[in-house]
Amino acid sequence: MNAPDTGPAHAQLNTLKARRLGIDTHQEAVIYLRQDSHLCRSEGLASHARVQVSSHDKVIVATLQFITSSILHHYEAGLSEAAWQRLDLKAGDDVLIAYAPAVESLSYVRAKIYGRRLEKPALRQIVDDIVAGRYADVHLAAFVTACAGDALDNDEIASLTDAMVQAGRRIDWGRTPVSDKHSVGGLPGNRTTPIVVAIAAACGLTIPKTSSRAITSPSGTADTMETLTRVDLDLEAMRRVVEKEGGCLAWGGAIDLSPADDVLIRVERALDIDSEGQLIASVLSKKIAAGATHVLIDMPVGPTAKVRTQAEADRLTAALLAVGKTAGLQVRVLQTDGTEPVGSGIGPALEARDVLRVLQNAPDAPAVLRARSVTLAGALLELVGTARPREGERTADTALRDGRAWRKFVAICTAQGGLREPPVAACTRAIEAPQAGRVVKIDNRVLARIAKLAGAPDDKAAGVELHVHLGMTVARGQPLYTLQAETHGELAYALEYVARHPDVIEIQGQ
Amino acid sequence: MNAPDTGPAHAQLNTLKARRLGIDTHQEAVIYLRQDSHLCRSEGLASHARVQVSSHDKVIVATLQFITSSILHHYEAGLSEAAWQRLDLKAGDDVLIAYAPAVESLSYVRAKIYGRRLEKPALRQIVDDIVAGRYADVHLAAFVTACAGDALDNDEIASLTDAMVQAGRRIDWGRTPVSDKHSVGGLPGNRTTPIVVAIAAACGLTIPKTSSRAITSPSGTADTMETLTRVDLDLEAMRRVVEKEGGCLAWGGAIDLSPADDVLIRVERALDIDSEGQLIASVLSKKIAAGATHVLIDMPVGPTAKVRTQAEADRLTAALLAVGKTAGLQVRVLQTDGTEPVGSGIGPALEARDVLRVLQNAPDAPAVLRARSVTLAGALLELVGTARPREGERTADTALRDGRAWRKFVAICTAQGGLREPPVAACTRAIEAPQAGRVVKIDNRVLARIAKLAGAPDDKAAGVELHVHLGMTVARGQPLYTLQAETHGELAYALEYVARHPDVIEIQGQ
Repeated sequence: MNAPDTGPAHAQLNTLKARRLGIDTHQEAVIYLRQDSHLCRSEGLASHARVQVSSHDKVIVATLQFITSSILHHYEAGLSEAAWQRLDLKAGDDVLIAYAPAVESLSYVRAKIYGRRLEKPALRQIVDDIVAGRYADVHLAAFVTACAGDALDNDEIASLTDAMVQAGRRIDWGRTPVSDKHSVGGLPGNRTTPIVVAIAAACGLTIPKTSSRAITSPSGTADTMETLTRVDLDLEAMRRVVEKEGGCLAWGGAIDLSPADDVLIRVERALDIDSEGQLIASVLSKKIAAGATHVLIDMPVGPTAKVRTQAEADRLTAALLAVGKTAGLQVRVLQTDGTEPVGSGIGPALEARDVLRVLQNAPDAPAVLRARSVTLAGALLELVGTARPREGERTADTALRDGRAWRKFVAICTAQGGLREPPVAACTRAIEAPQAGRVVKIDNRVLARIAKLAGAPDDKAAGVELHVHLGMTVARGQPLYTLQAETHGELAYALEYVARHPDVIEIQGQ
Repeated sequence: MNAPDTGPAHAQLNTLKARRLGIDTHQEAVIYLRQDSHLCRSEGLASHARVQVSSHDKVIVATLQFITSSILHHYEAGLSEAAWQRLDLKAGDDVLIAYAPAVESLSYVRAKIYGRRLEKPALRQIVDDIVAGRYADVHLAAFVTACAGDALDNDEIASLTDAMVQAGRRIDWGRTPVSDKHSVGGLPGNRTTPIVVAIAAACGLTIPKTSSRAITSPSGTADTMETLTRVDLDLEAMRRVVEKEGGCLAWGGAIDLSPADDVLIRVERALDIDSEGQLIASVLSKKIAAGATHVLIDMPVGPTAKVRTQAEADRLTAALLAVGKTAGLQVRVLQTDGTEPVGSGIGPALEARDVLRVLQNAPDAPAVLRARSVTLAGALLELVGTARPREGERTADTALRDGRAWRKFVAICTAQGGLREPPVAACTRAIEAPQAGRVVKIDNRVLARIAKLAGAPDDKAAGVELHVHLGMTVARGQPLYTLQAETHGELAYALEYVARHPDVIEIQGQ
């Protein structure tokens, strides 16, 4: 018997006409075939099998779903949007269907699930398979879960970081030092990055900042910046902005840095989990790929921040420094106060307005956001050597106060395509203090959750505007915060959650 | 402002016409809506959101996928087969769409991912939500992964067992003792259960055996029995068989015992992982739900069996006994030799033929399968008290030898709907010894993988027929095993894997 899947007759049998069904399955490539088609019967294809789909010179792996209705003909292969785009198809193109070869790197994922260490080549193979789209969503979920918590040691994190850098492109700016900055997040309204970049670039640093969109938070820096200017710059556009202004504020996803990270982040978001090892690999791989030599990391610590305890902060700091060293990066970690939101706004547009007020030295600018930004910018200036030890903060403060940072910010946004006004939400609702007293506790996580239920980050104007801070005295009926949503449905959805969590802001009667 | 999702006007806005798209998404309920529909825009629904879909008195949670083509009208809601069946819809029925409430038990899954212990109410809530279909596939994958390896302690396993029993129905046979038997698996061709049940019932035990289909193996007992008789009995049918014959050999899934287990097993299969805690909860919850009082567990131990080492076997045995005790079950574990396949056939029909040969006292009956079945049946007779200590094996052997077991097996199959001949594969290929010598090693896992690639268990006739055993001497060119498949595609697929794994059976030259 000859191997049946090599001859041209066999190829013809397995060739179907591509049909764009227009189904948005998110990122997972799905192929739809008639269950009663000749191909499915002769090949013994089972529902949910992983199959290889090729057309012209492109090959992808897709999950098979059977169609039992007449929305598809027997000679057609329906493709999800993700599959259609990855194969770069035109209607009626021939697609060739075959069994997908077994994904060998899944055995490494299983090994990790059972608690074993992964070596560099294993992580490299996993990341390469992920980027090539060979993992179904359930496989991605298993990998993310298996690596969550503290399941990866520093060597594994360094290997994962390296694998993620190798799987994407790496930018060479042709100069050194190149600065970067990252916030570990988990603190709503902590939108210091645009301010730090403006100050740093105003002080002469090269800081080509790429940011991600929100993972589990109501807004990432890229979401916030997108309400102010264009952020989906390609590498050439980024280069032009950085050449001209020394800095930029772009979305990292558009330039294909660490593409594995984008896939994993989507799954982490669906699961609403963060993994310490993947967090470090994600942060550092993006920095290395972006060509950074010096990286400042802001790590807010507080009971409802992402990093909750000093012990956790110290462990994470040590891991960041260790993995950074292995990767040849100059890393400094600043542990900051994470007990309450840094700005007033929580959500893309609301945070953008905070940023503008600080940069414009507005009298109502959130004081904590301003102070935090100056501290971080100062530390970065010291790390790079532009400011002497202990003098960074004063240098940064001056650049902000005298308007250089604001002018630099406007220049960067102009170079990126123009500065625009952030949108305003259509539906709002103020939540009032149920009694007079002092604000003694703010639950960052619940606030973030409320902002997300209101529609952030997908709805740019949605979120929460906070009117109080820890220690403030409020009267009964005084607004504590205002919900903002783009639709009534989402406002109602968030309000329903608010009703079940009255203690998000705790008032102690006097 | 009034809550917008309560009034009848709002309900009308969110009501669409049900359309059966005939898409088999396996178990996950998916709802398809036009991205540009009024509902999606006004409610701000995002792709992959979890939405609540209700019709008449039924409510499900489904994953939203956007449709950007004209396969769906704006006023239509497309539903996957799983969603359609769970809502029990007719074409054109009204379905009401709303945001799904947050699934609170996912916070417990996250806690487990981060390594925390789960209390009984947490596991109860997780299992209830899983059975109610509130978990998307990625959530199920995360839960299965988080519980894999040894992540659950005995108390957690007992809680999970109890939750799984509570979430389904529990059978009362109105008599005691009620016997049951389970094999931990991982050993291809270890199809002792039908033989043990026939012997036990022939000796007067009540043994209403329900079995599962294969999880990650080429065949489960239910897959094998299905080639011989009807196994999808409902509870009434099972009762009739057991009343009449004292035993049955049914598929557990048809009678809704431990429905959570069926959901989890599907995901474990997709991930190809087993979890020790879920294995114990799965086994014991099914036994408790099936009304058993005495359970014998066969645990094959060997380097390529599921349980690989003595230490692992002892830990698993202790956990099974401890959790069994908490649950009020009499459990006995028999650790058996797991170094090579027990029967000759690997795959549903091939294993069925082994079972028939043993029961019929055929001269070519696999000796190891016969001996193992007698040992297990004997231990069960002793556990229940029907045989005195050390006398069980002799009692069992007599019942097999004198034809009582075979007559009982025929009677059981007849009561279940008739005994039939197992199917024969259309495509076969013998794999021959590359050299003369002695068989020194058989890799159970690779053999099982080959049988699966050939189509088992979905293709009943597919699998591997083994012609050699450990220690046997073979001539060059003598067939070691024969691949059996229902289609040429699958045969080729398995052969390709065979070519890459020549050492599945190791021959030492002499």
